[in-house]
Amino acid sequence: MSRDVVAAMTAYTLELREAEIKLNQNESPADFPRALKEQVLASVLERPWNIYPDFESMLLRGALAKTHGYATENLLVGNGSNELLAAAVPTFVGPGTPVVFPKPSFALYEKLVAVAGGIALPIAIDPTTGVLPLDEMLRAIERCDNAIVIVCSPNNPTGGVLPDGGIDALLATGATVLFDRAYGDFAEDAMPALHDRLVTFSTFSKAWGLAGLRVGWLASTASTCREIRKVKLPYSLNIISEAVAATALDHDDIRTRNVANTIAERARMFEAMRQIDGVTPFPSRSNFIAFTTARNAKDVFNDLHARGILIRDIGAAVANALRVSVGNAEQNDSFLETLSSCA
Amino acid sequence: MSRDVVAAMTAYTLELREAEIKLNQNESPADFPRALKEQVLASVLERPWNIYPDFESMLLRGALAKTHGYATENLLVGNGSNELLAAAVPTFVGPGTPVVFPKPSFALYEKLVAVAGGIALPIAIDPTTGVLPLDEMLRAIERCDNAIVIVCSPNNPTGGVLPDGGIDALLATGATVLFDRAYGDFAEDAMPALHDRLVTFSTFSKAWGLAGLRVGWLASTASTCREIRKVKLPYSLNIISEAVAATALDHDDIRTRNVANTIAERARMFEAMRQIDGVTPFPSRSNFIAFTTARNAKDVFNDLHARGILIRDIGAAVANALRVSVGNAEQNDSFLETLSSCA
Repeated sequence: MSRDVVAAMTAYTLELREAEIKLNQNESPADFPRALKEQVLASVLERPWNIYPDFESMLLRGALAKTHGYATENLLVGNGSNELLAAAVPTFVGPGTPVVFPKPSFALYEKLVAVAGGIALPIAIDPTTGVLPLDEMLRAIERCDNAIVIVCSPNNPTGGVLPDGGIDALLATGATVLFDRAYGDFAEDAMPALHDRLVTFSTFSKAWGLAGLRVGWLASTASTCREIRKVKLPYSLNIISEAVAATALDHDDIRTRNVANTIAERARMFEAMRQIDGVTPFPSRSNFIAFTTARNAKDVFNDLHARGILIRDIGAAVANALRVSVGNAEQNDSFLETLSSCA
Repeated sequence: MSRDVVAAMTAYTLELREAEIKLNQNESPADFPRALKEQVLASVLERPWNIYPDFESMLLRGALAKTHGYATENLLVGNGSNELLAAAVPTFVGPGTPVVFPKPSFALYEKLVAVAGGIALPIAIDPTTGVLPLDEMLRAIERCDNAIVIVCSPNNPTGGVLPDGGIDALLATGATVLFDRAYGDFAEDAMPALHDRLVTFSTFSKAWGLAGLRVGWLASTASTCREIRKVKLPYSLNIISEAVAATALDHDDIRTRNVANTIAERARMFEAMRQIDGVTPFPSRSNFIAFTTARNAKDVFNDLHARGILIRDIGAAVANALRVSVGNAEQNDSFLETLSSCA
């Protein structure tokens, strides 16, 4: 009864397990500061909940424009960057549209392309290099007419990044580029310049530590934003999440502290993991580290979980590989100590 | 650069105007009770905001299952019923799929069908009857192979409903039926029985008065929910909105009071509008009344606005027609008094 393309799909799944130390979803280890929670909740208590959100989401778009030096017409906000990706893909991808993307990457891209009827052209990643396969992507694009490119840099779940100048090189082909920089803060990258054929997706879920609130945003030229907005659902950002995100932008120290902590801990974890026999961590510019183990990775995953530490089994994406989020120092110590005893 | 089908679309728009009395978006006139706001905000203050929502949204799906006598596998929840419609349409509608729907109706349906590449088969409504054109829909379905039907009952923006037994008659054709009962509470309808080819969409935005929080849900059989879930985005409902909706379900008196007030006020408004020279209200089972005016409707709309009352100009859907939400008694009195002086 559902379309053949949907019947053939599998659902996005997450193995649900409880654990004392949760390092499986690339969440920030730091909660939003309690004083700011109280401040924003006190303000939303006074707002009417029976009235739809502002159609233009001017509170958050205005705050983002000010923070990043854009005009509000260069910005759309939504219910997580997922929602904006789900609007942007069918804006550009229809039946038969070629879509080039590194693989493995965030599983959502392939699902969105399949639903839109696009032709998936995955480009294999070597996760040991720490770099995405730009030259192979460029060659694949040159073989297509009007390709769409989806690229996540740093890439999830492998951690590698586009080489310097990668976005410009992709744009120079004439392709339209959907650039997911959900993890970009952890690579200390800069927002790329606006371009009609470039859409940059950002999130409050990672560096800002607001995954539970579901807020994302995109930046592009006004004309491209107008096109995506035709496909995007209206009123997709609720009044409370919008208020929280706008409040967060007034306190950039939260983001910079989270990012600095994560980068420092990532370097420490990477070196420690390299010292563990049988463990091969992949270079990462993100808030997680993927790695292979000499032992069967699923067994390592289960042993870690039995000792209270939940990470991610990414064996479906990279053979015999696992992924651990960079937590706080205490969580990471527990992980490293346990891994060294079971890897 | 965007697809031709998107380039040809217009964005969902809302004319933004300020007004003392806001009767333009079919919102509940009653805010969520302050004591419950305080209760739920106190609970979310204690939750981690840096952690993703529960992948299965069990809090709200469990509460809905208990309230409505379903199993959780019969339910999906999302960021407003819009989001669930946007997942369900491409689950069933692909390039060339015929889609039958009454017109005018909620503008989102046609956009979703256009993006999915479906063939729109609108069936004209006579809004003066208060009834949706079931026989014409059935005939249109019989002329198609594997039609999808989208029906909103009570219909927005006209207010009419499917005749009794309408859903069963539509299902008997073999069609898949997407049934938007966003306004169903105001018709005192019952949830239809589950069926593999029936998906029923509900919302907390109208009868529950929670439009600002963006929470919707759908009900169908487990197998159909599994298919839609493949297309739906994960984590689409944030932790605060989920907590608010689950709290609401523990207080059904809110919904029943809102519905009773709206039904009583709707009857009073309808009779009063019928007494105003030149005003022709359409029979409505919803929380709004559409009407035509002998005078140019846009002039009436502007005159009302100049006097602090914002309603909706639906002239693009029904010639020379306006739509007023049923507000509270005081708001409705102001509207009726002003309309009688400017219609």
